[in-house]
Amino acid sequence: MTGERRVVGVDLGGTNLRAAVICADGRIEHRQSVATDAQDGPEMVIKRMADLVGRVAADGALDSSTVVGVAAPGPLNPKTGVVHFTPNLPGWLNYPLRDALSEQTGLRVVVENDANCAVVGEARFGAAKGASDVIYLGLGTGVGGGIIADGKLISGVSGLGGELGHVCVSIDGPRCTCGGVGCLEAYVAGWAIAREGDLVAVTSDGAALREASGGKAITPRDVIAAAADGDAAAIAILVRAGRALAAATGSFINTFNPELIVIGGGLGVGDSHILTAARDALPDYSFRAQREEARIVIAKLGDDSGLFGAGALALDSLRESVTV
Amino acid sequence: MTGERRVVGVDLGGTNLRAAVICADGRIEHRQSVATDAQDGPEMVIKRMADLVGRVAADGALDSSTVVGVAAPGPLNPKTGVVHFTPNLPGWLNYPLRDALSEQTGLRVVVENDANCAVVGEARFGAAKGASDVIYLGLGTGVGGGIIADGKLISGVSGLGGELGHVCVSIDGPRCTCGGVGCLEAYVAGWAIAREGDLVAVTSDGAALREASGGKAITPRDVIAAAADGDAAAIAILVRAGRALAAATGSFINTFNPELIVIGGGLGVGDSHILTAARDALPDYSFRAQREEARIVIAKLGDDSGLFGAGALALDSLRESVTV
Repeated sequence: MTGERRVVGVDLGGTNLRAAVICADGRIEHRQSVATDAQDGPEMVIKRMADLVGRVAADGALDSSTVVGVAAPGPLNPKTGVVHFTPNLPGWLNYPLRDALSEQTGLRVVVENDANCAVVGEARFGAAKGASDVIYLGLGTGVGGGIIADGKLISGVSGLGGELGHVCVSIDGPRCTCGGVGCLEAYVAGWAIAREGDLVAVTSDGAALREASGGKAITPRDVIAAAADGDAAAIAILVRAGRALAAATGSFINTFNPELIVIGGGLGVGDSHILTAARDALPDYSFRAQREEARIVIAKLGDDSGLFGAGALALDSLRESVTV
Repeated sequence: MTGERRVVGVDLGGTNLRAAVICADGRIEHRQSVATDAQDGPEMVIKRMADLVGRVAADGALDSSTVVGVAAPGPLNPKTGVVHFTPNLPGWLNYPLRDALSEQTGLRVVVENDANCAVVGEARFGAAKGASDVIYLGLGTGVGGGIIADGKLISGVSGLGGELGHVCVSIDGPRCTCGGVGCLEAYVAGWAIAREGDLVAVTSDGAALREASGGKAITPRDVIAAAADGDAAAIAILVRAGRALAAATGSFINTFNPELIVIGGGLGVGDSHILTAARDALPDYSFRAQREEARIVIAKLGDDSGLFGAGALALDSLRESVTV
């Protein structure tokens, strides 16, 4: 059966739809990508996804017993395969992604939240390979999270857990776009850094930020660029974000006693001010014994962590169906 | 084998050492208790524990194939049975509780942190019976925590997880006795409420607190009593604690998507101001879908949750050894 241990992994992104054959040993083959064109609505996107899966499966000479794993954005229930909603894909309201794709492809489909897929991908094939207790944080436009405890993905009674960007790090902190107060995301997400940049840019300390933005709305890149040039106000924004990241990471260390914290996403890998400040502040927010066991590492699979994780979950599902 | 499904549960407290026969159906029999007399050091305490276990096992007519489950305070590693240290038991530094008790009793022993035992006890026999995803918070002198996800106790790679009293709810908050900044415990533990009471008592708003304490150091009971009499300063302390509890509880809801949050411990069951404030503030700190799935309930087993949990873990261990 070793030759059969291959599946199709799919990553449903706001911009691109990507798919590939994922092998049990971590090789990736026959990768293909098309534009999501999300504005066409879920039916058309699923049709595109089914075509893509069909082509990849054909290229990989996979038969009808294979499984498709899909990493999808937004809160979803992996037990039912229904996507509750997604901020970046219009029209996906309680949409039965799993059943729709399964009907069109004739293949068994498993669906999981993209950040949950990312932690599975990194734990199976990436920076946390072989670890049983892993926390993943994806720092980008938003902040995604995933938890593996004792070798298993933890996502709660309806699969809605793992929202690690929305743990509170300050009871009186800034509002988050989710409506919450003092969420980690409200300090460290791209939008939060841009918001702070905009607020600072109108002050007397904001000259460098005003210049970096060229008079337009500040972007996270503007803040990072100004900080790289040594601007104190920009550095302060990133250090504050790093301190919030330390508070959340320390809480995860005390809560999960993990071996690894994997930091992914564009901001996480791109900016050393945030990560340096987070490492410096971590002793304020975590027990020593647990902290010393938890290594903080950068994600290894980059944009592909979700794709690999979706494949890993499909591989697990394949094994279950074989052994049953 | 049904008749054999009985074990000995032990709760190692700072004041009392308690043991009983725990049956698989949740009955508790042949309960006994002796003073811990912790000042005598671990060897003497283990000797007392072994005597107690021996008497309880004899009363229950248990044979040498039974298992003993021990709920012990302080950070410990359940895989090795070593207690790293305990704040309330002098001399317990990296003490091999499991092996020492096993040697003296001739019985197999399993050891787990008392707050972790509490969540297992409540999930097996108490307020969370039948639930697969449960968070336990014990609010007392300190704040203990325990996590059950997908039916399994989550305690991390070395068993040091579940320290839910030491998640950060405010990056700039008050220092905790653990050395951390803005821990949940630093707002809601008995000592934290007493500290706030002491600080308020010297102000112009503190007349009722000064009176309640009779000139001595303020206790949590003084604050609760003054609040019950309608004192605004005392109520404000408890509402603040409740808000911190909401921030942490909301984070757990977003992280674990649990069915139940079980609140135990003396403060949790005794003071309605804290719990009412926590329920009121919860929407600020949790997603609606996850919040609507999570019921907040009061622990049902009281002081016995750890004893029952230790028994449940011993029963699990018994089953494993039978089926192997």
